Amino acid sequence: MSRIEARPDEDTAATGPLVGRLLAGLPAGAVLTDPDVTASYANDMASFCEAGVPAAVVLPRTAEEVQHVMRVATELRVPVVPQGARTGLSGAANASEGCIVLSLVRMDRILEISPVDRVAVVEPGVVNAALSRAVNEHGLYYPPDPSSWEMCTIGGNIGTASGGLCCVKYGVTAEYVLGLDVVLADGRLMSTGRRTAKGVAGYDLTRLFVGSEGSLGIVVRATLALRPQPPRQLVLAAEFASAAAACDAVCRIMEGGHVPSLLELMDRTTVKAVNDLANMGLPETTEALLLAAFDTPDPAADLAAVGALCEAAGATAVVPADDAAESELLLQARRLSLTALEAVKGTTMIDDVCVPRSRLGAMLEGVERIAEKYRLTIGVCAHAGDGNTHPTVCFDAGDADESRRARESFDEIMALGLELGGTITGEHGVGVLKKEWLAREIGPVGLEMQRAIKSAFDPLGILNPGKLF
Amino acid sequence: MSRIEARPDEDTAATGPLVGRLLAGLPAGAVLTDPDVTASYANDMASFCEAGVPAAVVLPRTAEEVQHVMRVATELRVPVVPQGARTGLSGAANASEGCIVLSLVRMDRILEISPVDRVAVVEPGVVNAALSRAVNEHGLYYPPDPSSWEMCTIGGNIGTASGGLCCVKYGVTAEYVLGLDVVLADGRLMSTGRRTAKGVAGYDLTRLFVGSEGSLGIVVRATLALRPQPPRQLVLAAEFASAAAACDAVCRIMEGGHVPSLLELMDRTTVKAVNDLANMGLPETTEALLLAAFDTPDPAADLAAVGALCEAAGATAVVPADDAAESELLLQARRLSLTALEAVKGTTMIDDVCVPRSRLGAMLEGVERIAEKYRLTIGVCAHAGDGNTHPTVCFDAGDADESRRARESFDEIMALGLELGGTITGEHGVGVLKKEWLAREIGPVGLEMQRAIKSAFDPLGILNPGKLF
Repeated sequence: MSRIEARPDEDTAATGPLVGRLLAGLPAGAVLTDPDVTASYANDMASFCEAGVPAAVVLPRTAEEVQHVMRVATELRVPVVPQGARTGLSGAANASEGCIVLSLVRMDRILEISPVDRVAVVEPGVVNAALSRAVNEHGLYYPPDPSSWEMCTIGGNIGTASGGLCCVKYGVTAEYVLGLDVVLADGRLMSTGRRTAKGVAGYDLTRLFVGSEGSLGIVVRATLALRPQPPRQLVLAAEFASAAAACDAVCRIMEGGHVPSLLELMDRTTVKAVNDLANMGLPETTEALLLAAFDTPDPAADLAAVGALCEAAGATAVVPADDAAESELLLQARRLSLTALEAVKGTTMIDDVCVPRSRLGAMLEGVERIAEKYRLTIGVCAHAGDGNTHPTVCFDAGDADESRRARESFDEIMALGLELGGTITGEHGVGVLKKEWLAREIGPVGLEMQRAIKSAFDPLGILNPGKLF
Repeated sequence: MSRIEARPDEDTAATGPLVGRLLAGLPAGAVLTDPDVTASYANDMASFCEAGVPAAVVLPRTAEEVQHVMRVATELRVPVVPQGARTGLSGAANASEGCIVLSLVRMDRILEISPVDRVAVVEPGVVNAALSRAVNEHGLYYPPDPSSWEMCTIGGNIGTASGGLCCVKYGVTAEYVLGLDVVLADGRLMSTGRRTAKGVAGYDLTRLFVGSEGSLGIVVRATLALRPQPPRQLVLAAEFASAAAACDAVCRIMEGGHVPSLLELMDRTTVKAVNDLANMGLPETTEALLLAAFDTPDPAADLAAVGALCEAAGATAVVPADDAAESELLLQARRLSLTALEAVKGTTMIDDVCVPRSRLGAMLEGVERIAEKYRLTIGVCAHAGDGNTHPTVCFDAGDADESRRARESFDEIMALGLELGGTITGEHGVGVLKKEWLAREIGPVGLEMQRAIKSAFDPLGILNPGKLF
């Protein structure tokens, strides 16, 4: 690392005294300024999102180091962009021009796992899968499982309020964050929340930070709720001759009082893309593939009941997995969906509209209409049980006209989501990508109050400026 | 009602133009000013909490009427104290001197129940039990069940972030509030949150309002998440020769990965008080009675496993209920606990300290020490699975010395809770009763940020002033 480390004498007209001030409170190797290196920290995984060039990338290992960074940033009025693994899909982690990128990936210790209290205490840079595996060893389960779970960090999950496949039964990241240690814009340390199962002492600042995309403070420690590990889930696949029939099945399943641990939908385009990428032998004659899973004591019985509901909704085939291996194969197919759609034309814009599940059919029908109108390939995979769709626009970024149509269709999809009583983002967040749309969704009064909260925490506007609103 | 209704000519030197301005936008009968009547709106159910005399009580039926009240309050700088059923236990609904009491009890319509979307849309004055019964008819379940569930309102539950017996499996009110319509201090209407299962568009203002005790705005509509109705639970009672052994059993049950739908503890004092009140034949030789319940597909099997853990922890008797009737009887005993303890000496102070469940034994031991020190009867019932204790100080309010000792012991119990890594309030809220203690729990930085949020929403400080901090 020594070659690319910053030295105090690197301060230039552009960075002013910044690097020297940062290094005064940080160990060698914690500040990077080599432009080739810092450029690699400019973006998360979102398309169509502007990003600036960072003045420095800082990689702290302790809360005290983060406090030092924020004190310097406050003193010099330099924007700070916190980052985890940069797997986000809304540009929330994109650098702004001349900013300090504050990467929390080196704060990656799991500090405690308590089976009695069912909590884990972690630093923000812990990778989601690393935590999952560590708690599994104690018979415990940390449910939130975004697609990027092998790479993404808990800090990033908290910043974006991530979801995943298991949310339909187990909820999202927000429901697992009990308490936080946060470094405020001015460098002061604040603790929120609790370690206890319940607690209502004052306003819920913990929940305010979850999903705030680093705009209110820097999370340096989190106390997370855990659950006992459920039995291994068994998956059923059902094929449908229309997306409408698959959505009808989703409604019947939820109305019937079932609690699947997973209820996912892949449309024809997605199924084909996955087969093309990984030759998985999924049924390409289907118009929609529904995957349902149960992790109950008797999952086969639940799958039989749900299979019958799928048939009543017109399923052309219902195939329960016989064992864990078959189940895992079906889940792999689902987990590959976004990568596979990316391979179709080289670039994707992944939307994240969530509608009341009763409107899921209308949403899918509308997306199909939009794809036709803009002459685009739009694959839809969806956390169907939550009504959370991922219409994924496939396009060639080198084709200016197709890129323009992709961007326009994306906006039209969000408008459709709002029209159906939904939200512009179920789990990916607002970032840069959906700023205009946040304002449309929450309206002027809501926006004013959101901004008032931002000002209360960050009066100088140095925390991840230009994101959210 | 006409005799006690206010007339515009009732404005006096004390109320100024208030009553006239209120009546300009409200129907006859919506404003009460008769002092005998308004006095009955001065208090909730907390002991030792100051209350002022309201200038008027307003009973709106619509959001527009609430908006009118807030506009008048803003114009005249009159404090507004929102109220539900006034069953709260922290003084959060107590009137302040010269305030408008804004009682939401007439806004009591259930506007929608959707089995597919698993949501209910309600006005704030809907009684918890009325909602529970209404959703049951659709095969649905609204879990939060505070002891006062037959009287308390959803608006009050949201204001105090209420818990109940079922939290150990199903969580608290906060986890069931998806979206809100809120009238702000200046009378503007703001919508927060969503109707969808997931949504991360901007800061989580919904959650900020839950537990805010009416200090940020007036909830006039709520969209609540529902669950499918679980199977009826079966209850087991286990007797222990010491509270420590019962707490050990709680730890073994939770560490063993069990998910009871209820896990409650009653100490000897509480058991005796319930028997004295209702002659229920509970075992008075016990030092602690543990109640565990399961609403799983095979509850008897779960009870057998948990019964074995109780025996391993030293239970002197383990008695699983044979049927729903026996189970209901045991639950009745638990639900009567607070009333029974109140009958011991006429008055109680109910504490609400929640500790990490691994510290439950230390908490109970400490409370016993405090009871001895202050020569008081303190009964403890607890949502043991959550570590949420209700040490209940029984005293004679006519005895000044005993009252003083009661108050002092109460403070010492909160200090103990914090010392054990807990919170001063698991589910009752801060109100007037625990204001000083909130500051101790969250510290000066946390307090400053809480106040900053309050100022952002209520710059004039007219919303339930003097509560929380």
